[in-house]
Amino acid sequence: MKFATVNTGNTQLYGAVSEAGFTALSPSFPDWATMRDVVNAAGLPSLAKEAQGRAVTHPNDSFTYAIPVPNPEKIICVGVNFPDRNAEYKDGQDAPQNMSLFPRFARSFTGHDEALVRPPETPQLDYEGEIAIIIGKGGRRILQADAYDHIAALSLCNEGTLRDWVRHAKFNVTQGKNWDSSGAIGPWLVPFERAEQLDDIRLTTHVNGELRQDDRTSRMLFPIRRQIEYISTFTTLVPGDIIITGTPTGAGARFDPPRFLVPGDEIIVAAEGIGELRNTVRDE
Amino acid sequence: MKFATVNTGNTQLYGAVSEAGFTALSPSFPDWATMRDVVNAAGLPSLAKEAQGRAVTHPNDSFTYAIPVPNPEKIICVGVNFPDRNAEYKDGQDAPQNMSLFPRFARSFTGHDEALVRPPETPQLDYEGEIAIIIGKGGRRILQADAYDHIAALSLCNEGTLRDWVRHAKFNVTQGKNWDSSGAIGPWLVPFERAEQLDDIRLTTHVNGELRQDDRTSRMLFPIRRQIEYISTFTTLVPGDIIITGTPTGAGARFDPPRFLVPGDEIIVAAEGIGELRNTVRDE
Repeated sequence: MKFATVNTGNTQLYGAVSEAGFTALSPSFPDWATMRDVVNAAGLPSLAKEAQGRAVTHPNDSFTYAIPVPNPEKIICVGVNFPDRNAEYKDGQDAPQNMSLFPRFARSFTGHDEALVRPPETPQLDYEGEIAIIIGKGGRRILQADAYDHIAALSLCNEGTLRDWVRHAKFNVTQGKNWDSSGAIGPWLVPFERAEQLDDIRLTTHVNGELRQDDRTSRMLFPIRRQIEYISTFTTLVPGDIIITGTPTGAGARFDPPRFLVPGDEIIVAAEGIGELRNTVRDE
Repeated sequence: MKFATVNTGNTQLYGAVSEAGFTALSPSFPDWATMRDVVNAAGLPSLAKEAQGRAVTHPNDSFTYAIPVPNPEKIICVGVNFPDRNAEYKDGQDAPQNMSLFPRFARSFTGHDEALVRPPETPQLDYEGEIAIIIGKGGRRILQADAYDHIAALSLCNEGTLRDWVRHAKFNVTQGKNWDSSGAIGPWLVPFERAEQLDDIRLTTHVNGELRQDDRTSRMLFPIRRQIEYISTFTTLVPGDIIITGTPTGAGARFDPPRFLVPGDEIIVAAEGIGELRNTVRDE
């Protein structure tokens, strides 16, 4: 079962997604205004039950995808988290002992099947395929052994980046990582029920059908259990929080010459058991 | 007129602050649940009008201060923004061409007169006195000439930092800047009406009565008008957003040996025309 947040006209709904389209479930749960409320109430099983035997309310092409949790308290991204990725930086430094982290604002992401926006200020829009986890049970100083118990669902992310703006300043990648609608999260939430859904799954990114990124979660320098432990050391994780878990080698900036995204490109981020996040590119 | 968000028992209220205490105004504005709603509706003048002639509803000591806008969409901090501060980093690099920016989550801040929390993981809790601006009118690609029109109010910030955690990873200061309740914003909002309230005001930080930081907004490397222009280039600013505008030289980490905060310390961040933000320190 897969659950999404979609826009239909001026209304945002959450519900279940199938081959045929979208089944609105939010009208059945007036106490839960958004998917964040659902996750906060550990309500994904209730959504699954409500969806049983229900017909599609919105056929494909009658809705657009929003990011699955439209208003998370925080979105935290993990940088430089796959082998070879540290070497790509060519700065002569050893791999760091702790993970690099940076927040992104929700408005820097759009939904599945939407266009990433290339702004007039720079042509260096780049892709980064990643797995997104959605926190279901909050906590502070969560142990690695318990970490998976705190995940409600999985999703995908194209952690789109304006490369030259990442290096604008002395520290921090903030401004290169937070352009409005420069990335995407989606298409949907897949409820997380078993460790095998996450421990060793393949993650790929294709651009116009060409394989650009291809790696497995088992090769992460900082595994997802460790991410939850480390992040929750300093900040309280709450339901609906999203962790973007790191991208494999092969982003466009690493080619010589670089291969940045241009309008008309199609990028597909895919992971086993989660699905495919597809986006195009448009000029602002 | 000064406006604050306060906690009384289990209730959070907004209203006006005077010498005698707090006058709750939120009950008079049922459409505006929080100060963010007030700012979004450009409602500070309505609050001022409503407060005229009203008696104090909560005398001092019957309430505690929350951060003035408790649920902003985003809080963006400007780093390395006063002369000598770049030199303090002693990394041999020239001053950067663009400002360093990093987000903080609202839960990393507490209110006026509350204790900053020193966690068991590190003793390196440090202060940074700063001026906070609250966006009143949203926008994207705001010009410097128009920037002040987008500010609703001013406040103060102790941008408390866990120093060793700032340098945990290869890039980004995220984890050293986002410990729960490691900083403070407040005490209140002062409506912003004239450029002279911001252009050249003195900003100081005292620790246990000793002057540690002392500079003027006119000496910022990246003035506030420029901050608004630059930040709004990549992200849409919305009402209630908070920009923390940078700290002068003199944080505790820069002393030899460093002078980090310990329980019992009292830190006062003050700026002309805004007030004094006072905090103590407690061990978690």
